[in-house]
Amino acid sequence: MKNTLVESPPMRLTRAYEFAASHRLYSRHLTEEQNLELFGKCSYPNGHGHNYVLEITVEGPIDPQSARVIDPVSLDEIVNREIVDRYDHRHFNHDIPEFTDLVPSTELVTKVAWERLVDHIPPPARLISVAIQETARNKFEYRGEI
Amino acid sequence: MKNTLVESPPMRLTRAYEFAASHRLYSRHLTEEQNLELFGKCSYPNGHGHNYVLEITVEGPIDPQSARVIDPVSLDEIVNREIVDRYDHRHFNHDIPEFTDLVPSTELVTKVAWERLVDHIPPPARLISVAIQETARNKFEYRGEI
Amino acid sequence: MKNTLVESPPMRLTRAYEFAASHRLYSRHLTEEQNLELFGKCSYPNGHGHNYVLEITVEGPIDPQSARVIDPVSLDEIVNREIVDRYDHRHFNHDIPEFTDLVPSTELVTKVAWERLVDHIPPPARLISVAIQETARNKFEYRGEI
Amino acid sequence: MKNTLVESPPMRLTRAYEFAASHRLYSRHLTEEQNLELFGKCSYPNGHGHNYVLEITVEGPIDPQSARVIDPVSLDEIVNREIVDRYDHRHFNHDIPEFTDLVPSTELVTKVAWERLVDHIPPPARLISVAIQETARNKFEYRGEI
Amino acid sequence: MKNTLVESPPMRLTRAYEFAASHRLYSRHLTEEQNLELFGKCSYPNGHGHNYVLEITVEGPIDPQSARVIDPVSLDEIVNREIVDRYDHRHFNHDIPEFTDLVPSTELVTKVAWERLVDHIPPPARLISVAIQETARNKFEYRGEI
Amino acid sequence: MKNTLVESPPMRLTRAYEFAASHRLYSRHLTEEQNLELFGKCSYPNGHGHNYVLEITVEGPIDPQSARVIDPVSLDEIVNREIVDRYDHRHFNHDIPEFTDLVPSTELVTKVAWERLVDHIPPPARLISVAIQETARNKFEYRGEI
Repeated sequence: MKNTLVESPPMRLTRAYEFAASHRLYSRHLTEEQNLELFGKCSYPNGHGHNYVLEITVEGPIDPQSARVIDPVSLDEIVNREIVDRYDHRHFNHDIPEFTDLVPSTELVTKVAWERLVDHIPPPARLISVAIQETARNKFEYRGEI
Repeated sequence: MKNTLVESPPMRLTRAYEFAASHRLYSRHLTEEQNLELFGKCSYPNGHGHNYVLEITVEGPIDPQSARVIDPVSLDEIVNREIVDRYDHRHFNHDIPEFTDLVPSTELVTKVAWERLVDHIPPPARLISVAIQETARNKFEYRGEI
Repeated sequence: MKNTLVESPPMRLTRAYEFAASHRLYSRHLTEEQNLELFGKCSYPNGHGHNYVLEITVEGPIDPQSARVIDPVSLDEIVNREIVDRYDHRHFNHDIPEFTDLVPSTELVTKVAWERLVDHIPPPARLISVAIQETARNKFEYRGEI
Repeated sequence: MKNTLVESPPMRLTRAYEFAASHRLYSRHLTEEQNLELFGKCSYPNGHGHNYVLEITVEGPIDPQSARVIDPVSLDEIVNREIVDRYDHRHFNHDIPEFTDLVPSTELVTKVAWERLVDHIPPPARLISVAIQETARNKFEYRGEI
Repeated sequence: MKNTLVESPPMRLTRAYEFAASHRLYSRHLTEEQNLELFGKCSYPNGHGHNYVLEITVEGPIDPQSARVIDPVSLDEIVNREIVDRYDHRHFNHDIPEFTDLVPSTELVTKVAWERLVDHIPPPARLISVAIQETARNKFEYRGEI
Repeated sequence: MKNTLVESPPMRLTRAYEFAASHRLYSRHLTEEQNLELFGKCSYPNGHGHNYVLEITVEGPIDPQSARVIDPVSLDEIVNREIVDRYDHRHFNHDIPEFTDLVPSTELVTKVAWERLVDHIPPPARLISVAIQETARNKFEYRGEI
């Protein structure tokens, strides 16, 4: 076997997941009027929703036996348990404890997703990016503290 | 001018629009338990949302002067006024009067959109299809009473 | 309730599924040379593969209670049992009994999928189209005997 | 061989092609001012362009030997010769003879494409639709004289 | 409020815009023959066009009050004023002053877009990437002087 | 000419290619049972396939004469010769010599593609990324030894 090929520098895998949820951009530290002025239609009282596309990127060496950077079944279990199963068909402001005191902007949903995942990726793979596509025009990406 | 080309049989134009909204599949004629059994996670109390992609198809002859089947600016005004501006960033169950007594399934949102549009398309063009893509996997289409 | 809205003419739902499989265009009634001449690179001996996207379209009235044309969970069970679970990660020529004597062109995969599904759709919904996207450029559609 | 499978009712194949071209919506029967009023920014003097996606749909029985509805290599030769090679990287108003006297609206480009193709599809397959996607939001379809 | 969540390291937002325009790859320092040899069909005299998809990526801390990295309405105003409204439905070679002496390759359109935007992004957000997708197969990205 | 614009820092071009192929995740150093346990359905004996989308990213200065980072015709010749023409409509395990002793995971296909391309990109452009999208949910990227 050509060992130079499998004892390799980092490879990246990006894997996509989808969930449908609702959010309202609303800060409890502001009045209703201030919220509407700051957030516009994103602050309408009953919220609105999106098909969020979550992209998880991990990086690591290619395992010599499996020829893979990570077992995709394990990655799916982690992401579904920590993110998809908890957020899918839910309203961030009302149903998700971690957003009780946080404005559920997609920026903060992305950051919270990073924090929920970063310690669960099995080494030597490691999380390097969490991105969420909120609409066809809007995508947020977080790469952790640098 | 080759008149045979412009005095023509029907041409179709499909034009796409996008809006972000929330809905909850819930019938007031059923108990909470019955709703959950019938609709599953689509009936979670606080609702969830989608990026709805609305596709409007009109059909008509090609106008000899404009070489168009319909003026796209007029079509946009109609669709935005009747659908997009009313539904975007809203919660169907709470904010939209026409769903006070209707379950806002995407089937019925599609049908209501047809009914709101069908009489406004300027002749000789006419509406022939309204479709809504609810998720990357799900698309509904309605073509009126046949 | 506005009954005119729910006692309605047909609504269509198109639902998409994906499976990865291999095929080789090869007729046992032709020589190897004839197969290569007829099918070109699609007849290379070890086959090649695709991410097949299967689109199932059903049509029916909107159920007054559920406001749906079909229960999507039931539809998924049928399509997964009859098609996706049987074809996913398989080689049509070697692994799928219904292609022992049929060239697994995407035309015939589409037609066989129709035949495997048409009697299982719960009335009053009925199957009206099965389409398979074979590549980004190629899509086949079958609508049954007309 | 299960002959019922291959002596079959019509199957449809839709095949996509792409070309980049320019056009200006402009009628020589109108003044510059009238053109601008009728067509807006689509009539700016130097034109603008699109990545046009052309979708050709043919319909026919599945050939018992090839298990195909049409030889895709032949279809590509026809479409490239009649449409793609003639329109790609060209300006409809200045470079394409068939638009010397026609406004090159995408409606008319679609209709002309139909007329250039309809007699060249080898029987028993026949052309049933020509569609052109002009932008991510706009798609035109023509199905011939009905 | 969990302050560690909102006093955060950089978050990235990528926002997409679309415009339809024409260009011709042509250098006034070369003869017609040299241009055709160098640029091929991209140098045909009357130009051709594309649906350009412009992706703007900004990076910055998440604002503690708005939970956002930038106000999207402000970003849209800047990008529309500097790029989209100036280039949409225009011919780069004839209509856009900054390309009077520059070959309007998509490389240079991307670089000019960066230069038109980089000083307008409101701090603490800053521009980190401008990318333009020219066709389904071709994408250019510029990240400034490094 | 504004020389500051053309004597420029690196510009990136990402160009996409597509090929249809088959693979089986299988290590000859493991038993059939061990392969099935490790790879699941990806190790079914006859393999399965994908529409692989290959994205090649090169980086370099913008050439002052051509206003391009690389001649796209040359890049296509290199990528087609080294990758697309060799892998398209083939089975990695049986038809491709470089995978005789390597598990053809998409990680290793991506890495091998990098190694086949890296020395052929004409300077001053250089290869900076090879990515392969294996399914709509899965994408691998390799950036070489760092």
